Amino acid sequence: MTQISLAELVKSIGSLDAAAMTATQNRLDMLTKPPGSLGILERLVVQMAGIQGRTPPVAYPAAVIVMAADHGVVAEGVSAFPAEVTPQMVYNFLRGGAAINVLSRQAGAKVYVVDVGVNADLDVAPGTAGFLSRKVRYGTANMARVPAMTRAEAEQAIAAGAEVAALACADGAQVLALGEMGIGNTTAATALLCALRGHAPAEVTGRGTGVDDAGRQRKIATIERTLALHHPDPADPLGVLAAVGGLEIAALAGVALQAAALRRPVVVDGLIATSAALVARDLCPAVAPYLIPSHLSQEPGHIAMLSHLDITPLLHLDMRLGEGTGAAIALPILVAATRLLTEMATFAEAGVSEGD
Amino acid sequence: MTQISLAELVKSIGSLDAAAMTATQNRLDMLTKPPGSLGILERLVVQMAGIQGRTPPVAYPAAVIVMAADHGVVAEGVSAFPAEVTPQMVYNFLRGGAAINVLSRQAGAKVYVVDVGVNADLDVAPGTAGFLSRKVRYGTANMARVPAMTRAEAEQAIAAGAEVAALACADGAQVLALGEMGIGNTTAATALLCALRGHAPAEVTGRGTGVDDAGRQRKIATIERTLALHHPDPADPLGVLAAVGGLEIAALAGVALQAAALRRPVVVDGLIATSAALVARDLCPAVAPYLIPSHLSQEPGHIAMLSHLDITPLLHLDMRLGEGTGAAIALPILVAATRLLTEMATFAEAGVSEGD
Repeated sequence: MTQISLAELVKSIGSLDAAAMTATQNRLDMLTKPPGSLGILERLVVQMAGIQGRTPPVAYPAAVIVMAADHGVVAEGVSAFPAEVTPQMVYNFLRGGAAINVLSRQAGAKVYVVDVGVNADLDVAPGTAGFLSRKVRYGTANMARVPAMTRAEAEQAIAAGAEVAALACADGAQVLALGEMGIGNTTAATALLCALRGHAPAEVTGRGTGVDDAGRQRKIATIERTLALHHPDPADPLGVLAAVGGLEIAALAGVALQAAALRRPVVVDGLIATSAALVARDLCPAVAPYLIPSHLSQEPGHIAMLSHLDITPLLHLDMRLGEGTGAAIALPILVAATRLLTEMATFAEAGVSEGD
Repeated sequence: MTQISLAELVKSIGSLDAAAMTATQNRLDMLTKPPGSLGILERLVVQMAGIQGRTPPVAYPAAVIVMAADHGVVAEGVSAFPAEVTPQMVYNFLRGGAAINVLSRQAGAKVYVVDVGVNADLDVAPGTAGFLSRKVRYGTANMARVPAMTRAEAEQAIAAGAEVAALACADGAQVLALGEMGIGNTTAATALLCALRGHAPAEVTGRGTGVDDAGRQRKIATIERTLALHHPDPADPLGVLAAVGGLEIAALAGVALQAAALRRPVVVDGLIATSAALVARDLCPAVAPYLIPSHLSQEPGHIAMLSHLDITPLLHLDMRLGEGTGAAIALPILVAATRLLTEMATFAEAGVSEGD
């Protein structure tokens, strides 16, 4: 398959369909409820209508795209889990035993597991359902010492994400959710946040999968050293991504961009997926209205990222698992929003008196 | 049916099953995720196990109990909608066209619509599915002038709620969600909050279904006048309920108490349902661990009530519709929590390395 160029991808993202949004809002205002009383559910269904360019919008089925990759920076002792867990969890995803599998089954969403940079030769039988090998390289380099990847590799990972997003849409996905697996990736995501928006690492660095105080201090020091080494320029988001990002993060940015180009809502997850959304937004501001929040992670950098994207989390579940689990648990809320639009009676149909 | 006495009901509520909770937590800690990383989902499934006295707990099917009643206080101009909307919405519920019907369908939950005090003779065919007539009186009296109801009526409404809860459990409900309809009931719920916990009405009074600034000032003044008239004693929650409550609120308190007695989780909704939970808790503190939060309403009194109940909302959707809609949209989250417990692989099963 010919690799789509980032420049082409960015150019292909249009604006939301204002007519579909107005028609949706008008219908909402006729339904048997005080105007606006469904709150964010109303805003979500209007947004989805604008994204998809039709009313009612369609929130089902969704696909969860789980990008997996390793991080050279784990050599600095930033994670509570060893790097071997990345391939082990890929196998767990493929057997259906991980949290993201359970939540996706409940949501009726297909899971795509993509090796975009796992640091191992995965032992997956050809044709295994839901698995795609798009390995760009065997994990990133240790960003605390050298750039995580080259610009060309970052572009290749973005293109891989775009290709998988297009494939999921061709398979029937109406909504795409961002998921990931990669031991060490809260360090990369936090470094991206600091590089792109100027936060001090100590303010936004959390415990990831569960490091102790000393581990968190190592993460902070590692991110500080990394930023001092590369001096990444926020005006060059591709350069930032290559210097301090991750292959799964780049690929998820590609998913977000291609989903927007294909007019599909993009459901953001926790710290890592949201860092990818932030990169996508900096590569192409037109992607912003295609982003839909899900949960608020326990990771301290997450609320900062959501705020930079001007989106407000729906769910406050204190989760910090990743994989796309927060996005998957939010998917039924999008379905609920569309069903309210299509299934509720109007004041006229129900013979209910309207308010003041 | 013999009316169960409040004293009997209160005595029949036991404590949570500590062994089921420990067994659930032990299982959670074996699953392929960092310990605790599912956040509140883990706490919910442990709580449900303790409530039901078994592991895994069962979150499906749920029932949504919608108590409907009118409020004499609407004569003071406190609502944006006329009182005739209460019976009109009951008909809408019975035809399946309201928001609560849509969200309950999505959750696979049965809706029970109960006339516990609608100020009209409802034209509902005998045997209409999901409808129960348990009318205690034709709406409350205007609490700004006289007590809303007698203590005996409040007890009768609580007993009606208890009876319906028992019926729903006998029908197979594993979880009960609290819903309501009653034009004027944000005024009663807010008055209850002020009477039970000493808040000033101006601090916690909102716009209900959508009154303007003048309407909100009327609500505040009405609640102030009502409290000054009755001087309700917070040490006597039944007296407070009779003076400034509502028939649907009393009935929902009965639902919560009976659900706890039958070891079923009680999913709280917005301002009105939560005021009922607060009344139930003051009648019987043992009910508290049976309460499960759902969403955070736009109504300013809601966060105060949730804080008094020491529960934290899962969903931040800016809803203010009532009916049980926030509870219904949270039901799939409880199912997700139980499915994660039962369907996720353990570290040993999946061959995944554990963390530090």
